[in-house]
Amino acid sequence: MPDYLDAVRWDERGLVPAIAQDAASGRVLMMAWMNRDALAATVAEGVAVYWSRSRGRLWRKGERSGHTQQVRAVRLDCDGDTVLLSVEQTGGIACHTGRERCFFLRYDNGEWIADEPVLRDPDAIYPGGSGHE
Amino acid sequence: MPDYLDAVRWDERGLVPAIAQDAASGRVLMMAWMNRDALAATVAEGVAVYWSRSRGRLWRKGERSGHTQQVRAVRLDCDGDTVLLSVEQTGGIACHTGRERCFFLRYDNGEWIADEPVLRDPDAIYPGGSGHE
Repeated sequence: MPDYLDAVRWDERGLVPAIAQDAASGRVLMMAWMNRDALAATVAEGVAVYWSRSRGRLWRKGERSGHTQQVRAVRLDCDGDTVLLSVEQTGGIACHTGRERCFFLRYDNGEWIADEPVLRDPDAIYPGGSGHE
Repeated sequence: MPDYLDAVRWDERGLVPAIAQDAASGRVLMMAWMNRDALAATVAEGVAVYWSRSRGRLWRKGERSGHTQQVRAVRLDCDGDTVLLSVEQTGGIACHTGRERCFFLRYDNGEWIADEPVLRDPDAIYPGGSGHE
């Protein structure tokens, strides 16, 4: 494994959080997890590859939806335990709900309010099955 | 506990990642962790309060450095397991290394390169002791 992977402080599960930020708008799109293979694949392929905890396998973002993320920069924080990706979001939709991004809930007076629009019906994004990619 | 805290999917340690983004520039400054008390305090006080895993206590960001974060918005993602803060960063320095932000390492050809400047000597930020707040 290359040294750059050893510089990452993987947690007890072998994972780190990876934040995806839109390279053009600066909007924070989503947070997912990476293991060593996911980060190595992201760097090698230039597209965001995460580790799906629910499915226990590598998850090439957009593999079902087509909403891939072209990676323009990969950053690491001071403690080596969080990755920040600068991405171009294909289709302008990062969230499985059909919204631009996953952070569409805003705290307001004791509640979480969905204040960002659904851009595309999830049933059209994921025909034959709802939910995540 | 208010309902909004129950809507968060706390992990097995009772924590969620919290991303701090500069409200003006859109730069992603840092990622830290919150437990229920940290999120409740952040909402109540309007300043970023995290859970320090290393010290096992609430950590009011800037408690030693003065580099507090005034919180302009609190967001939650679709899965309820990641928080996004929009903040005004006092002093323009979020990182304990004296840099604007913690994500100052950029992947370049197999290495992590520090490509953002130290704005203030950490020894001046934390007199009498190095490192984190």
